[in-house]
Amino acid sequence: MKIAVDAMGGDNAPEAIVAGVERARDEFLDTEFILYGDRSQIDPLLHKTERITLVQADEVIDMNDEPVRAIRRKKNSSMVLAATAVKKGEADALFSCGNTGALLAAGLLLVGRIKGIARPGLVSTLPVVSGDGSFNLLDSGANADGKPEQLYQYALLGKYYATSVRGIENPRIGLLNNGTEPHKGSKLTLEAHQLIAADDSINFVGNVESRDLLDGVCDVVVADGFTGNAVLKAIEGTASSVMHLLKDSIMNAGIGGKVGALLLKSSLNQIKAKMDQSQYGGAVLLGAQAPVVKAHGASDSETVYYTVKQIKSMIDGQMLPKFTEYFSAQQAAAAKKDDQPEG
Amino acid sequence: MKIAVDAMGGDNAPEAIVAGVERARDEFLDTEFILYGDRSQIDPLLHKTERITLVQADEVIDMNDEPVRAIRRKKNSSMVLAATAVKKGEADALFSCGNTGALLAAGLLLVGRIKGIARPGLVSTLPVVSGDGSFNLLDSGANADGKPEQLYQYALLGKYYATSVRGIENPRIGLLNNGTEPHKGSKLTLEAHQLIAADDSINFVGNVESRDLLDGVCDVVVADGFTGNAVLKAIEGTASSVMHLLKDSIMNAGIGGKVGALLLKSSLNQIKAKMDQSQYGGAVLLGAQAPVVKAHGASDSETVYYTVKQIKSMIDGQMLPKFTEYFSAQQAAAAKKDDQPEG
Repeated sequence: MKIAVDAMGGDNAPEAIVAGVERARDEFLDTEFILYGDRSQIDPLLHKTERITLVQADEVIDMNDEPVRAIRRKKNSSMVLAATAVKKGEADALFSCGNTGALLAAGLLLVGRIKGIARPGLVSTLPVVSGDGSFNLLDSGANADGKPEQLYQYALLGKYYATSVRGIENPRIGLLNNGTEPHKGSKLTLEAHQLIAADDSINFVGNVESRDLLDGVCDVVVADGFTGNAVLKAIEGTASSVMHLLKDSIMNAGIGGKVGALLLKSSLNQIKAKMDQSQYGGAVLLGAQAPVVKAHGASDSETVYYTVKQIKSMIDGQMLPKFTEYFSAQQAAAAKKDDQPEG
Repeated sequence: MKIAVDAMGGDNAPEAIVAGVERARDEFLDTEFILYGDRSQIDPLLHKTERITLVQADEVIDMNDEPVRAIRRKKNSSMVLAATAVKKGEADALFSCGNTGALLAAGLLLVGRIKGIARPGLVSTLPVVSGDGSFNLLDSGANADGKPEQLYQYALLGKYYATSVRGIENPRIGLLNNGTEPHKGSKLTLEAHQLIAADDSINFVGNVESRDLLDGVCDVVVADGFTGNAVLKAIEGTASSVMHLLKDSIMNAGIGGKVGALLLKSSLNQIKAKMDQSQYGGAVLLGAQAPVVKAHGASDSETVYYTVKQIKSMIDGQMLPKFTEYFSAQQAAAAKKDDQPEG
């Protein structure tokens, strides 16, 4: 498998990208990489070029660029060149730590949608705090306005993702709602609930509330991109605020408090590790013709390594062929149904 | 001022309600209360009946009752009798720790809307974790489907609320969105942004993201009720999960960890106090013809006391007359505009 990497995206590029890719290359012997970026910066960082190809990119899309315009105008940027390679079939997946909006636009406009998918959705992975494991949330921000049919497709996409990448045989799918009762919800979630519940191939656990997500009420949470994004950021922000509050409180607690913190060090580190998302890799645009993967802008080499591992799971797990097969069969069935005379 | 209290709502009713009301009665000498509920349960709990009237209610609306049906059928329930007293002008505010949906229905159907308000919104109060103070979030769940004009009205309602109850002269109003840039958002938030930004009487700080709310980016956060509810519950759930994780981690950390926890006890208690919402009182249905206030089902007497204090601020701060004056002036201006010939 070959992965096209935007080597210039993110706060720690290209150092963290190159280091993470080299670690992954050394461990996963069936992976090859094309790194797009500034050769003069990347070359000195590379220990060996085995299974790594460098392609010069003269431009970089930065965090302040307007996404769609950047994709259209910065034709020689590391991100656009990497996306174009995937589009042409020269690589199997696209990976960047850069501008999220631009990467989503590159996924939609350059890599393209799978036939039958209305709107690809962004899937994020979060920790289950009260136990082991993690859960997926999609759409976590690709589309600000959701439709019931899209939420239904997210349930299907999430199911294949959890199966392929996380090895969960029959993942529990929940619909994010403002109450667990089936009659609760907005116009959007009430209709989406019906669609998802009607599909027997989905292990639907019904409505779930955002306060229960970290307890692991389901494996995949389906939401419209606006709410999904708001919930994702509320979880991240709250976890970070509480941890900061704890830190400040310890700093101001005098000698006794500092000794206490030392004695509790391993406990505090465990919590930090649990909340740390680097091991979960990046967010994936599901429904694009190849994995389009965005890791956090602040990613270090470890996150880059884990994200490559995650991409490898998607490819090894045959996620894309499964998507394509499923949605083209669905389309064919729908077309056949439309052709039949009524009654 | 006279407050109608549903003495039977919530997990700790009627004990916590009676104790909280008595404490408030002793402290706030201008308050009177009508307690609705089962006399045989309430009577033995009351220390003195000064400024407290008991009214027998034969029924209770419980947590499993379907809200609108319960309000229509349980005519002799403590909640319906209390709401009816407010509707008739026999009391100035309605307070319950019971079924949220039923209380919202009682507010809309019995107490009624202020003329000119499309949909009353539920305002919640949350702590600013990284500093002092708190912020308000509305709509935190009264209406699952929001419209731009409703979000604009929430901005106005939130402004008067923060001014009256929290004494903030020119509260900073933010619009919950999936990015801070003005061009970001859903169809709903893009339109709402325009409406709020066009009103010079609002101190609009623009779009805010859910990850920054606990840092105090603004005093009032405006959202549609679906997203507001999801964000509120995500914040509550995450704070609770992280605190539990910390507790479990300490329990499993052996002797050293337990000594550390003892030394850090005051720090940990500070954090708990900060995240504890009881001091902020209840959620208020803004836009109803009187304060309709819901405290948490698990409220203890302290929360009940603080909620009475909060209700007193609304009445002392003339919040309702201000609402009524503002929205009827707006309506009159709109009607006048409609009457004028074009051009």
